[in-house]
Amino acid sequence: MNPLRCSFCRKNEAFYVRSYEGIGLCHKCFKKNIEDRVRRTISKYKMLKPDDHVAVAVSGGKDSLSLLTILRKITKRFPKSRLTAVTVDEGIAEYRDEAIRIAKNYYKKHSIDYAIVSFEDLFQMKLDELVKKKRELSPCSYCGVLRRRAINLAAEKVGANVVATGHNLDDEAQTAMLNIVHGDVTRISRVEPVLEDPNGRFLRRIKPICEIPEKEVALYAYENGIEFQSVPCPYMATSLRNDMRSMLNRMEVKHPGTKYTVFRSIEKLRSALKLYAGKIELKNCRYCGEPTTTDICQVCKILKKAVP
Amino acid sequence: MNPLRCSFCRKNEAFYVRSYEGIGLCHKCFKKNIEDRVRRTISKYKMLKPDDHVAVAVSGGKDSLSLLTILRKITKRFPKSRLTAVTVDEGIAEYRDEAIRIAKNYYKKHSIDYAIVSFEDLFQMKLDELVKKKRELSPCSYCGVLRRRAINLAAEKVGANVVATGHNLDDEAQTAMLNIVHGDVTRISRVEPVLEDPNGRFLRRIKPICEIPEKEVALYAYENGIEFQSVPCPYMATSLRNDMRSMLNRMEVKHPGTKYTVFRSIEKLRSALKLYAGKIELKNCRYCGEPTTTDICQVCKILKKAVP
Repeated sequence: MNPLRCSFCRKNEAFYVRSYEGIGLCHKCFKKNIEDRVRRTISKYKMLKPDDHVAVAVSGGKDSLSLLTILRKITKRFPKSRLTAVTVDEGIAEYRDEAIRIAKNYYKKHSIDYAIVSFEDLFQMKLDELVKKKRELSPCSYCGVLRRRAINLAAEKVGANVVATGHNLDDEAQTAMLNIVHGDVTRISRVEPVLEDPNGRFLRRIKPICEIPEKEVALYAYENGIEFQSVPCPYMATSLRNDMRSMLNRMEVKHPGTKYTVFRSIEKLRSALKLYAGKIELKNCRYCGEPTTTDICQVCKILKKAVP
Repeated sequence: MNPLRCSFCRKNEAFYVRSYEGIGLCHKCFKKNIEDRVRRTISKYKMLKPDDHVAVAVSGGKDSLSLLTILRKITKRFPKSRLTAVTVDEGIAEYRDEAIRIAKNYYKKHSIDYAIVSFEDLFQMKLDELVKKKRELSPCSYCGVLRRRAINLAAEKVGANVVATGHNLDDEAQTAMLNIVHGDVTRISRVEPVLEDPNGRFLRRIKPICEIPEKEVALYAYENGIEFQSVPCPYMATSLRNDMRSMLNRMEVKHPGTKYTVFRSIEKLRSALKLYAGKIELKNCRYCGEPTTTDICQVCKILKKAVP
């Protein structure tokens, strides 16, 4: 039996079969294809300008380190652009230390500017301490709110004007479905591949790998010999996201392309919801002054109750 | 230890704990509460008028026979209203014969007018034969389209002006989520608790038990001593709906009330989508003349290819 040839170069042997497109890819074409697709996403959603200073949020996992690797290649062509990695130490015993060590190794190896900020410095509390005090929501809910703020603060500190995060296709599909299950439908209209305030009250947020399935992001990291943390966060098991993840994975196996279909569904719903809900008013938080859609931002809602 | 008292009558012992409301119910109050809630759904969505002739679609399962039982009680107060049961024989060997026997027993016991129509008579083909010929979609997809048409034809034949179906809360939540996974987001705006054409080109369709969870519909059937078919359809295992069902059931256990939250999310999305998509034009099918949103209705699309 002849080995399957790469559908792109038609020369090398394919090492990966992409079910949702019915094609095979060789090592070289796979890497190039992933990078081209991220370029297309960036261009389609107008994510970057030639002179942007991009803060890349790096956790030390496969998504953020693949994102950083791809953005390094892409921004190399733009001499006025700049990249700085920002890493958040949430204060999760053992787990996070390992990730930070991995991230730092990468920064040194590739001479990347970086900044590390911690929940302890910014909020006077490690995540491990917070989740012991507050139990109404899942640890992931608290961590998500505080980490986003921490990344923004770090990005402002290093002088960046854009924040890039490593949300992949699976993350986006899961989040949209979870918003429906949680009743947060208007949130669908606010979580976009690129989010920018016309009045510049917050840094532009972009998700350049939001159209790459998680599996292919992991494969990209392996193919590039990127060392990444593969142990899952100890709090992950408590998350409802796991149920959504396995449901979508099962559906993707039965019907390849399901995750893309969900992504396109979200885009249609987003357009509809934007028209319906109109513009969302941005206010300043009563306590910290950061932009928020309510009187008190989520960060202060979490901290004011926890820290008396 | 004292037994848990019913939260309604505060007298009898509770036999069922409703987690999403944090209450217990006795046998008598449970039955009354289910009937009251269906009354509220009917009134909220303006499903029925005092002189309606309602065709109740009865498969012989717990949902349709509970629906018929509740509608019999409700319409009893309206002397100008009328109920007729319509049952479709899809042609599923063994499985459907049993269900029809059960449905007929119910009709005779309670002196209910009924009509039985078959895929074989209406479409010159049993479902078992169709699914052998056509394999692009799941059996459930074909059956759903043809069964809906069969119910409408039967309802028109008996002179009804409304069709009531036994879709429960679980069905509605699953369907909305599946529409997103399948990319059919505009369908969300067309699948409502009540669907009526202002120009009367199709019979009004209502789902009176769409706000009752499946579990409580089954319990209602048991409590009323209704004999129903409990064997699942032999084609069910092939359905993606099963994955969605188990995911939503797991979430409901972890977070009681999740299915209601999804139901409310759909209502918000529906309002947004209606505004966005505008009115959907209704045409007549080129082949059979039935109302459709495309040139050829789904039924003819299935049959024209299958029957040369």
